[in-house]
Amino acid sequence: MTRIDLHPDRLLPAEPARREVARRLYETVRGLPIVSPHGHVDPVLLQQDRPFDNPAALFITPDHYVTRMLHAHGVPLTELGIPRRGGEGGVADPRQTWRRLCERWDAFRGTPSRYWLEAALVQVFDVPIRPSAADADLIYDRLMERFALPEYRPRALFDRFGVEVLATTDAPCGDLSAHRSLRDDPSWKGRVVPTFRPDAYLDPSLPGWAGRVEQLGSAAGIDTAAYRGYIQALEARRAFFISHGATATDQGPPDAGSVILAPTEAAQLFARALRGTASPEERRTFRQHMLCEMARMSCDDGLVMQLHPGVFRNHHPPTWRDFGTDIGADIPVAIEFTRALQPLLDLYGTHPNFRIVLFTLDETTWSRELAPLAGYYPSVYLGAPWWFLDTPDAMLRFRAAVTDTAGFAKTSGFVDDTRAFCSIPVRHDTARRIDCAHLSRLVVEHRLDEDEAVETAIDLAHRLPREVFRF
Amino acid sequence: MTRIDLHPDRLLPAEPARREVARRLYETVRGLPIVSPHGHVDPVLLQQDRPFDNPAALFITPDHYVTRMLHAHGVPLTELGIPRRGGEGGVADPRQTWRRLCERWDAFRGTPSRYWLEAALVQVFDVPIRPSAADADLIYDRLMERFALPEYRPRALFDRFGVEVLATTDAPCGDLSAHRSLRDDPSWKGRVVPTFRPDAYLDPSLPGWAGRVEQLGSAAGIDTAAYRGYIQALEARRAFFISHGATATDQGPPDAGSVILAPTEAAQLFARALRGTASPEERRTFRQHMLCEMARMSCDDGLVMQLHPGVFRNHHPPTWRDFGTDIGADIPVAIEFTRALQPLLDLYGTHPNFRIVLFTLDETTWSRELAPLAGYYPSVYLGAPWWFLDTPDAMLRFRAAVTDTAGFAKTSGFVDDTRAFCSIPVRHDTARRIDCAHLSRLVVEHRLDEDEAVETAIDLAHRLPREVFRF
Amino acid sequence: MTRIDLHPDRLLPAEPARREVARRLYETVRGLPIVSPHGHVDPVLLQQDRPFDNPAALFITPDHYVTRMLHAHGVPLTELGIPRRGGEGGVADPRQTWRRLCERWDAFRGTPSRYWLEAALVQVFDVPIRPSAADADLIYDRLMERFALPEYRPRALFDRFGVEVLATTDAPCGDLSAHRSLRDDPSWKGRVVPTFRPDAYLDPSLPGWAGRVEQLGSAAGIDTAAYRGYIQALEARRAFFISHGATATDQGPPDAGSVILAPTEAAQLFARALRGTASPEERRTFRQHMLCEMARMSCDDGLVMQLHPGVFRNHHPPTWRDFGTDIGADIPVAIEFTRALQPLLDLYGTHPNFRIVLFTLDETTWSRELAPLAGYYPSVYLGAPWWFLDTPDAMLRFRAAVTDTAGFAKTSGFVDDTRAFCSIPVRHDTARRIDCAHLSRLVVEHRLDEDEAVETAIDLAHRLPREVFRF
Repeated sequence: MTRIDLHPDRLLPAEPARREVARRLYETVRGLPIVSPHGHVDPVLLQQDRPFDNPAALFITPDHYVTRMLHAHGVPLTELGIPRRGGEGGVADPRQTWRRLCERWDAFRGTPSRYWLEAALVQVFDVPIRPSAADADLIYDRLMERFALPEYRPRALFDRFGVEVLATTDAPCGDLSAHRSLRDDPSWKGRVVPTFRPDAYLDPSLPGWAGRVEQLGSAAGIDTAAYRGYIQALEARRAFFISHGATATDQGPPDAGSVILAPTEAAQLFARALRGTASPEERRTFRQHMLCEMARMSCDDGLVMQLHPGVFRNHHPPTWRDFGTDIGADIPVAIEFTRALQPLLDLYGTHPNFRIVLFTLDETTWSRELAPLAGYYPSVYLGAPWWFLDTPDAMLRFRAAVTDTAGFAKTSGFVDDTRAFCSIPVRHDTARRIDCAHLSRLVVEHRLDEDEAVETAIDLAHRLPREVFRF
Repeated sequence: MTRIDLHPDRLLPAEPARREVARRLYETVRGLPIVSPHGHVDPVLLQQDRPFDNPAALFITPDHYVTRMLHAHGVPLTELGIPRRGGEGGVADPRQTWRRLCERWDAFRGTPSRYWLEAALVQVFDVPIRPSAADADLIYDRLMERFALPEYRPRALFDRFGVEVLATTDAPCGDLSAHRSLRDDPSWKGRVVPTFRPDAYLDPSLPGWAGRVEQLGSAAGIDTAAYRGYIQALEARRAFFISHGATATDQGPPDAGSVILAPTEAAQLFARALRGTASPEERRTFRQHMLCEMARMSCDDGLVMQLHPGVFRNHHPPTWRDFGTDIGADIPVAIEFTRALQPLLDLYGTHPNFRIVLFTLDETTWSRELAPLAGYYPSVYLGAPWWFLDTPDAMLRFRAAVTDTAGFAKTSGFVDDTRAFCSIPVRHDTARRIDCAHLSRLVVEHRLDEDEAVETAIDLAHRLPREVFRF
Repeated sequence: MTRIDLHPDRLLPAEPARREVARRLYETVRGLPIVSPHGHVDPVLLQQDRPFDNPAALFITPDHYVTRMLHAHGVPLTELGIPRRGGEGGVADPRQTWRRLCERWDAFRGTPSRYWLEAALVQVFDVPIRPSAADADLIYDRLMERFALPEYRPRALFDRFGVEVLATTDAPCGDLSAHRSLRDDPSWKGRVVPTFRPDAYLDPSLPGWAGRVEQLGSAAGIDTAAYRGYIQALEARRAFFISHGATATDQGPPDAGSVILAPTEAAQLFARALRGTASPEERRTFRQHMLCEMARMSCDDGLVMQLHPGVFRNHHPPTWRDFGTDIGADIPVAIEFTRALQPLLDLYGTHPNFRIVLFTLDETTWSRELAPLAGYYPSVYLGAPWWFLDTPDAMLRFRAAVTDTAGFAKTSGFVDDTRAFCSIPVRHDTARRIDCAHLSRLVVEHRLDEDEAVETAIDLAHRLPREVFRF
């Protein structure tokens, strides 16, 4: 059995002078509350506050970082507990699924998944054993013991993690009952807010769009058969989300293209799309127009706009047909922002109420496009490194690439974007350590005084996400 | 009041063994004269040698690095002293403008603007006070005292800075009277040479092109109504620039595309463009053809060709309509060189008299395209990191990306490209420190002997820019 | 005369704690046998085992890394011993050619060519003298003395280098007689296997394609006048290669595009291409279809597929007309994998017998596309940094960019891809040192325990290339 020891200086730079500065900076931010402005935790988890089912259901099946790597090493998705569409096929034995992970633990060397999972084992569940084929069952059993205890239930962990506010991601037609029920629960003191995620309602190219437009009408109580009603229904649902605490929207289109259409033109495209007679190009134009419409609504209602573009979703159709979406088969593509967002920013870029946070999976845009945009437009903020880039090395590259042109104050602060509830504290802690590592270099190279580095570390860990996302 | 202390080892790497080597290398280059082959200093500044007006007019209003960041934090351009087109609207009080900068000094943390301005305050003007809301007026007053003294006038500073040669950037129809007057002034010993910047005369897509073609004819005394005269007028103006000391041209097209047209074809496109009947594609083709024509002229007259492509100019049209160009709203785009320059290099790439220096705002081209091109074609040199990339971290990335394939000797040496006269010494000093930092790594990793690192540091700081730009 | 001293810690990081870890890791891998799964050594060299002709013929003329850099500094290719097509023009005096290199040795500062050549001088030939104009003849003479000795013949060096297996790159119609003769030679114990490189037979855009299709038929004894025979002939030649020890194919198309055509459609395109009536787009479609056909054959016969796309070959046509290919005038272009390979991976990406190793000259694809693809598809492996990126700094960037998403175990291990036989040991040694340098950072930043770092270093140096390339 190999014990996992989390070194207190982990992720901090090795050079002694830098490490000393980095340590001092880190001490000032390590205990700050967690602000989580974007993620995929299910609010029902906190509403119901049930014990976790088992280690596989907590750590493997819902985490596509983990399932994709095991799949890459030849483990079938069925063995990872991922249900087939339609539900046929037996459910995997969770202990077997857990063994699959532990047997291939070496495949995760050097990856953030490993770093996060080890931290969760040690810090969240006090099971400091390195996963291996030999110790898989031992770890499984220890975790099951923990799960049964009240102090390992979701609400207790939420408190222990020190979460000040947690934003979820929600469908526009959802009734937000879990959020409401939490808010109205006198025994619950936490803050969990919804985020308006309308992609599926804005892109006529997505299967089932027309049906969802009708649902939208039902949810809003507004007839969406014509464009005007469709727009009003979206506005109504945004208002409903705001009344439940939402401060932001989130969109993940394939590209960052924006188009301004006259209302009559937009109405015609909408009608054609609804009838199914719009060409692929017309459907794309309508989707890019709706990005601008969402920006316009943000000017009106103040919801912060998050943009997460540039992913080829469901890259392997056979897997998508069998298992559906979000199982790890999404692959980034090169993306362009400068020309794509120009129409939108021409209209709204200096609007005093508008705010847009730009995320990318294409690192090349950091120094070339995103930092220059955020360093000019008052409305534009640069989102934290996202998804495949949410890692120690990529975070360091991010700061080195964007600070010259955008400084620190036009970046969003950390965004964990996670489905893995128990990884929230380690992810935020990672960002804090890495930001301190970056700042320590500026200090020892005499590019920033230490008093200012301290202020900056606190800004990045706490002040900026609160302010940028209008909490 | 917080004092600014410039540490003698600033920008040098923290690791003690590396820092020691870097220091030794830096000592050999810190005092070398400054060769500035490309920049935007107005020669009238040196011709007239008047005291600087005020801190805002010196450090803020003309420096789009500074105005863009303050704009990004919500300061209106009018408060920064930027005049509206047509001149309506009052001029900002320079003391108020200076306060705007000092109040938001934290926004510049980690940026080169901050590094440059602090160095200018300390080293050029001996006012070592960190800008802040509280101390804005104090700094302002101290600077005003300095400006009144003869040793702080432009010519005295030019001498103090140790500038061996300074190239300006000039319109083809300019009379170069400031250059001539400096050259003929017996009290002036410096060398200030013009650079031929013909973009506005080569791209029929730019508003006012036809009128400028006519002006070109007047300036050259050659009828430019037909293509042949247009070409001859350009050649004549290049000769005029050479007679005033020019050694280089500079072009900044939106892309790096090159096209070879037969003279009759070019003449037809020229005629259509002049009549305003050329299509957008024809105008682009003509512009790309003129890049090759400029290369051909360089083969004949020996002017070194500088290429600065890949910027989306005036990205925010409302600001452009109100305030014009060069106020910070230019955003880079992805760019391609390999295919784009192939026609030009096919024809002139191995011509013994031809030389082209390639600059980019798209870092991805460094290892992928620019270093391979410079590492094959005798005529191609790799320009220094430019504009948004003219920063400590990007300079380090540049050396790490290109040295493998192009070595040091096919890079141009540092180019400050600045409008901010007082930032010239700190910018060159930054490049020298960073090059020494890079070289120190090669030395301590036993990839280069120290005697060769010393020679290389001197090459980069002084010999290469002199040779590459044919001074 | 300046002595070259190879420091035992060369390429290892300077920071003492990291260097100590890196040294320990390196000690565990420095002596492992060399597995060389991809390169361009001529097997005739080993079959004939003749002494090397002279230093120019060994180190300069065949090495386009060297010839391109000297060309970039104005040395004509004729002076480097490169014969003109048709053979007219005298052959350069090899001593003169060697002097050209030594005179411009400073141009190679910081490049891998210099690092490799110095190591070969010191370690392979025991001539530890830094090249210079003054010492060119001395080094030349010393090398000539060495070449005459039996211990410096190719087979003796092959043994001394510790090569476990060496893969060559071979034309599909070749008779592989050198491989066979080596295999059947009782005095030869080494393993040298061919690699099937069919580009010239798959791309109808390449001059002479139709003639080669006919040759293919002759080599296979199958009529290739129709598509079915063409496919069968390719399959037959693959089987012939397998019978001579081949475990892999290699393709280097201009892009990574893949297209699935129905057999009848493919047959029609083939016929049009053979008649010379196919459009450029049809020829490209056929070439992209043949990438998928090669993948299909790999599913059947188990040959590992290597893909090396994204180079603009023969960028300078005048040089190509005079001197032919592979003289250093190939320049990379931006490349796209995610969309391009999707059709191929849709069909074969999870096939249990399929394996594809992806190489790139466009670093931007490492974190954005290649690591995500290798981190999902069981069949996809990420090739080592290639060609212009086969350098200490780029290798470090590679590991930092891909490990987060692909781990170590989905990378291929080092591939030397060299024509320079004597650089094989130093290239592999460089990769081992750099991988240990990278791993040492993970260890000192407490991201990986040292026992796991040791295992990983051994995997990268030896186990992975053996397994990935199915040796």
